[in-house]
Amino acid sequence: MAVRIGKRTILLKNKPSIIGYASIVGKKEHEGPIGDEFDDYDEDCRFGEKTFEKAESRLQTNTARLAIKKSGLKETDIDCIFAGDLLNQCIGSSFGLRELGIPFVGLYGACSTMALSMSMASIMLDGGGAKRAVALTSSHFCSAERQYRFPLEYGSQRTPTAQWTVTGAGAVVLGEGYELPCINAITIGEIEDYNITDANNMGAAMAPAAAATLKHYFSDTGTSPDDYDIIYTGDLGYVGTELLYELLEREKIDIRCRHNDCGMLIYDKEGQDVHAGGSGCGCSASVLCSFIMHRFESGDFNNILFVSTGALMSPTSTMQGESIPGIAHLVNIKKIDK
Amino acid sequence: MAVRIGKRTILLKNKPSIIGYASIVGKKEHEGPIGDEFDDYDEDCRFGEKTFEKAESRLQTNTARLAIKKSGLKETDIDCIFAGDLLNQCIGSSFGLRELGIPFVGLYGACSTMALSMSMASIMLDGGGAKRAVALTSSHFCSAERQYRFPLEYGSQRTPTAQWTVTGAGAVVLGEGYELPCINAITIGEIEDYNITDANNMGAAMAPAAAATLKHYFSDTGTSPDDYDIIYTGDLGYVGTELLYELLEREKIDIRCRHNDCGMLIYDKEGQDVHAGGSGCGCSASVLCSFIMHRFESGDFNNILFVSTGALMSPTSTMQGESIPGIAHLVNIKKIDK
Repeated sequence: MAVRIGKRTILLKNKPSIIGYASIVGKKEHEGPIGDEFDDYDEDCRFGEKTFEKAESRLQTNTARLAIKKSGLKETDIDCIFAGDLLNQCIGSSFGLRELGIPFVGLYGACSTMALSMSMASIMLDGGGAKRAVALTSSHFCSAERQYRFPLEYGSQRTPTAQWTVTGAGAVVLGEGYELPCINAITIGEIEDYNITDANNMGAAMAPAAAATLKHYFSDTGTSPDDYDIIYTGDLGYVGTELLYELLEREKIDIRCRHNDCGMLIYDKEGQDVHAGGSGCGCSASVLCSFIMHRFESGDFNNILFVSTGALMSPTSTMQGESIPGIAHLVNIKKIDK
Repeated sequence: MAVRIGKRTILLKNKPSIIGYASIVGKKEHEGPIGDEFDDYDEDCRFGEKTFEKAESRLQTNTARLAIKKSGLKETDIDCIFAGDLLNQCIGSSFGLRELGIPFVGLYGACSTMALSMSMASIMLDGGGAKRAVALTSSHFCSAERQYRFPLEYGSQRTPTAQWTVTGAGAVVLGEGYELPCINAITIGEIEDYNITDANNMGAAMAPAAAATLKHYFSDTGTSPDDYDIIYTGDLGYVGTELLYELLEREKIDIRCRHNDCGMLIYDKEGQDVHAGGSGCGCSASVLCSFIMHRFESGDFNNILFVSTGALMSPTSTMQGESIPGIAHLVNIKKIDK
């Protein structure tokens, strides 16, 4: 049985291991500072498809298949797949994963989806409901721009606080493993709304959620930032990260020396014209399933917090004058001798 | 520990009970044949809000609060809430539930969401990750028509196979209970695609998924339809139900005498001009949290299968020539002396 500690944190008993992972990205991500760490990339970001939405679906299919293959398993070995994306009705996942024939749990957590899908998969595995599961998510710059902002053909100008949606996907295979990083604890986030209304400043909308989830986790577990090798947030970018530091300092929590943000890692800020950094479900997913997992393999990391952050708005809610609620889910990934 | 039986079914060990439930609907649903069984309804379907989307959010807030109240609990007693809806980026749930301050798992299963949210909540409770959880979903005729078809002001004609999206929400509170119906087993569905492309014939798109999930469940558990008081599908309506019977007959499974569909129950087919029946996430959710639960209370039901069905398409996927994949998740609700 898992144990609930504090109000919001779940300490897993069986602690499913990450037995495989894969990441596939677009051209811009491949050209970025950690570009060599991804498993594969596509030169024109269409992944052989005719539309951007179909390209995103194909990206999910390919990433799921590659992660399963890299874990040494077959698709028929997987009991359940947990996925979602940013597209309306999550068609990136439903069309991307339909050919796999694996029981499917659809999730919507906006850019928090990677930590959410890993959390739900881990809970099912920990409780005995499955032996092996895949958790994944994706985003695509072109499908996201068309849906949330303007079609690329308009050539819109971007504001300084705007982030660049990552074209990328990351998938982990969870199961029983020996001497592999495992999911030790989970904190499911609450919806936080600080009344941010600027749809071009998602970092500010999501920072309060990341601060709240981290605060809850440290309080529930009685640990502090110093107990972890590093804390990765999903896609707060440069603007959201500064806000996160300020919000946590009010709670007397200092993470500055132990924190990085996947949205700041994935692009070269000066050279790639991405303004406030990367964003999208695929941002934290692809960085986890490359850069971060490689550092577990090399022994640099043994115990980290992975906090994906999402902005739970839609173009309709923004047009109706609504603010942008945020959410952040946390996964503690740890190497444990089992 | 839960036990996995067969390839797809999870038999729960602790079997969380339904310790509270509530349903709130619109005017048309209140005027239907089971209209008196819902807890509440709204005369103009706006629930005091200015837009249909905000009305749907308010419907979720009210239904979640009422279910918690009816279970004798406070909002602070709830460890986690599982919800989703049909709106782009699931804003019905994220805006509807943000004021509750409860850890939130966002799901997207289209009209299969009620069985999906109950499944995920049950798995978390069964594994010890939470003590009390809420599972809910909603749909709203006016927000769904605007998003999936045409704004109501256009006065579009409806095809004979079209279904009527239910304005309604249903919520269950799961926890430890004595002599109450509980969640005994779960089958997470696969994505099934029979190449249906008519967005006005959702029943046909979802029937293969319901057939597949039922077939898997009977095979995994070694049971037959006669072992259950009744089998409820979510919202196949009249067209989809006939297809479900035909597809199951090919597998030598006859459910005709033991089946009803929430989409056929909720409206008067002749008197309410709903063509092929009701649909939407709120259809199976509101029927479960009224008509079905009342029959558990009266002793008419002791052991049922509840199978919510979803069509995983979006207007964009349809415009890009895609077919409509379906999915169906199954929950076995049973009274057990624990």
